[in-house]
Amino acid sequence: MLATNRAFYDAFEARDLDRMSDIWEHSDRVLCTHPGWATLRGWGQISASWVALFSGAQHLQFILTDERVRLRGPVAWVTVDENLIGQQTGQTVAALNLFHRVDGEWLLWCHHGSAVAPRPPRSAEP
Amino acid sequence: MLATNRAFYDAFEARDLDRMSDIWEHSDRVLCTHPGWATLRGWGQISASWVALFSGAQHLQFILTDERVRLRGPVAWVTVDENLIGQQTGQTVAALNLFHRVDGEWLLWCHHGSAVAPRPPRSAEP
Repeated sequence: MLATNRAFYDAFEARDLDRMSDIWEHSDRVLCTHPGWATLRGWGQISASWVALFSGAQHLQFILTDERVRLRGPVAWVTVDENLIGQQTGQTVAALNLFHRVDGEWLLWCHHGSAVAPRPPRSAEP
Repeated sequence: MLATNRAFYDAFEARDLDRMSDIWEHSDRVLCTHPGWATLRGWGQISASWVALFSGAQHLQFILTDERVRLRGPVAWVTVDENLIGQQTGQTVAALNLFHRVDGEWLLWCHHGSAVAPRPPRSAEP
């Protein structure tokens, strides 16, 4: 499952739609919240977002830090800091990736990333 | 479980630490990512964040929209848009709340909120 998590970022960096597609569960239950975006629901919306991201000008590279894996029944999750290299140098995204085991294979069903402010606003939710 | 989700926001608005504490699983497995914050792990860090938030000057109120619930085995999740009223009027936070059933009771084990940009950056992850 950690291998699937790494494959997600490899596909992201390579802008490889086929590999990205293979990693995700294709259902109406899947969720994706890119930093700054509204929540996308269902594989249709999510796959369209990858098409849009991969056809954009920005090529992102990630240095992953503080990667932690946990299991709870058939659900596994990874929290990881995505340290972005490229046009967004210095930006860190706090990411949560949730996986579900289907026929022995881990599939991604939720990706939620949020930009970490340089100085966390310690006095407010937003 | 939807009731627990509502209770979370009621406790947040009321700045009620006891009620907030009752809603969460108290373990080292729980996660909380406030918008703009790094990911907090474990009830110790998370409870400290609520103490900090509730002792701050800002009183938040939420109008919840597009609240959706799903189940996957012992895990349930709610996606909801938190529309903030107060000093952050007009700000929307895309939130994901994950619950786990323990002895017939739903407990919160993950809250991840990220600010939605007025115009989503359609060409980039961050």
